[in-house]
Amino acid sequence: MAGGIGGARFLRGLRAALRADEPTASITVIGNTGDDITLFGLRVCPDLDTVMYTLGEGIDEQQGWGRAKESFAVKDELASYGAQPQWFGLGDRDIATHILRTQWLAEGVPLSEVTARLCERWRPGVRLLPMSDDKVETHVVIDDGASGGRRLIHFQEWWVRLHAQAPALEITAVGAATATPAPGVVEAIADADVVLLPPSNPIVSIGTILAVPGIRQALVATSAPVVGVSPIIGGAPVRGMADACLTARGVETSAAAVGALYGPSLIDGWLVDTVDAGAAVDGVEVRSRPLLMTDVEATADIARAALALAAEVRA
Amino acid sequence: MAGGIGGARFLRGLRAALRADEPTASITVIGNTGDDITLFGLRVCPDLDTVMYTLGEGIDEQQGWGRAKESFAVKDELASYGAQPQWFGLGDRDIATHILRTQWLAEGVPLSEVTARLCERWRPGVRLLPMSDDKVETHVVIDDGASGGRRLIHFQEWWVRLHAQAPALEITAVGAATATPAPGVVEAIADADVVLLPPSNPIVSIGTILAVPGIRQALVATSAPVVGVSPIIGGAPVRGMADACLTARGVETSAAAVGALYGPSLIDGWLVDTVDAGAAVDGVEVRSRPLLMTDVEATADIARAALALAAEVRA
Repeated sequence: MAGGIGGARFLRGLRAALRADEPTASITVIGNTGDDITLFGLRVCPDLDTVMYTLGEGIDEQQGWGRAKESFAVKDELASYGAQPQWFGLGDRDIATHILRTQWLAEGVPLSEVTARLCERWRPGVRLLPMSDDKVETHVVIDDGASGGRRLIHFQEWWVRLHAQAPALEITAVGAATATPAPGVVEAIADADVVLLPPSNPIVSIGTILAVPGIRQALVATSAPVVGVSPIIGGAPVRGMADACLTARGVETSAAAVGALYGPSLIDGWLVDTVDAGAAVDGVEVRSRPLLMTDVEATADIARAALALAAEVRA
Repeated sequence: MAGGIGGARFLRGLRAALRADEPTASITVIGNTGDDITLFGLRVCPDLDTVMYTLGEGIDEQQGWGRAKESFAVKDELASYGAQPQWFGLGDRDIATHILRTQWLAEGVPLSEVTARLCERWRPGVRLLPMSDDKVETHVVIDDGASGGRRLIHFQEWWVRLHAQAPALEITAVGAATATPAPGVVEAIADADVVLLPPSNPIVSIGTILAVPGIRQALVATSAPVVGVSPIIGGAPVRGMADACLTARGVETSAAAVGALYGPSLIDGWLVDTVDAGAAVDGVEVRSRPLLMTDVEATADIARAALALAAEVRA
């Protein structure tokens, strides 16, 4: 299961580790689609694309999302028309992906098949499944300072435009309750040898995937060991603004608290950073090691440690 | 009434002439939408955009269509995905227009209102109306050499991909019979002081506009003088491949034949080039002068001659 940047980078390490150590192994990724948004009529799936571009060598390495060597002619033109919103940085290369996706969705092709078609070009070396073919969009209730009222905005507006600075009173995955897992999702969890939760945002990435009825249950039911990698190191997110999401849910920003949020019903093992070596989670095996994904090789070693912990808890 | 390049250039001259000679005059353009096509789910209106970009100083002067200083990142990306068709040159700046148009059309905004919104940016100095808010698409029946059969293709495929080289057995405006004129079209013709037919393609531009029920009738009924400018000089189109269209309809490629095609029920005056000074059209006043639209000033003089002929036939 994976969100965007953190998940994609972890997957690149995992893929490298398996290619070296276990070349017959295959990876199925269940991607978060709660960040999806329709902009100018185009359907944008930021997390699926980040995984696809990262594993397909098309990502902007520096920023971690979007395409390398990107240009912004379309965005500039849309701004010249005065079209809103202008706070989302849609690049020209990236837009081609959204145009095709939107065209296919309009033709009735489900998102899982659309994603498979896009991956025919990118060959990410994993099977990338959206968590659901149904539309699920994370929305955030913020305190609207000006009017003193509560305002419901799309997650992307909160994250990208407001940089998660406006305290979230509530984070909710609109549409999740009636969504069904995409074809292959429940089966992948049931048939897996190991299930890994990468250091993605536990609320709006992993949490949203788990909010699709059937997925949490599949995770609880699978005979495979489930191991998570903490996205929190020394009380702060490695990257991104997961703390703002955790706070909104009343969860402390600590490796131990996130481990406890998943808890023993979901995970068997929890990998934390060396600085969090003291963290304990009731009913869960906790191990510590350096968790900074500085490069692919370092990340592959983190993935190896997660797989080793899985082997340990399976035994 | 106007098609693409020829119509747009004539309009630029007409606008210059009126600004100088009659600054309170206003121009309403009835644009051809039969060339419209949906590519990758985006609705493209080549003739409306050519008029809008030309009068709005955004046109690629050299090629006469598309945006100046254009880039093609999106097109290249779509090709990398293997998406078809690849024979239509959608530029990045141009695509922004199509994205907005498609978004608004999907929201239920009629094309005439979409066009007005786009013109808020371009300020073309004319009121630009599509001939109809209904979808009309010109299709061409060609002889499919390979299989010996007849094949129906979109006008753009014939024009852009095949360069009108495959003989057209039939040219038909699909949807025209049941289309209705866009709001303001019939009124503009009825209330006009002068109606001009610029040197646009008489079959697939002016002809398609006239194929919308009500427009030809409005032209016949208006009390305004109607004057056309020949798109044919010395037996050849000034630009484009109008000869291939005329041949498909059994009309000779000559200034006289096109004048007769419109005929006295539609036009009162017909302006031809000096080389066609001998052309006569029954029941229509014919005048000759140089018709090459070499620059805006030369084109303004052509427009002045058309207006003078209109004044003459009115008297």
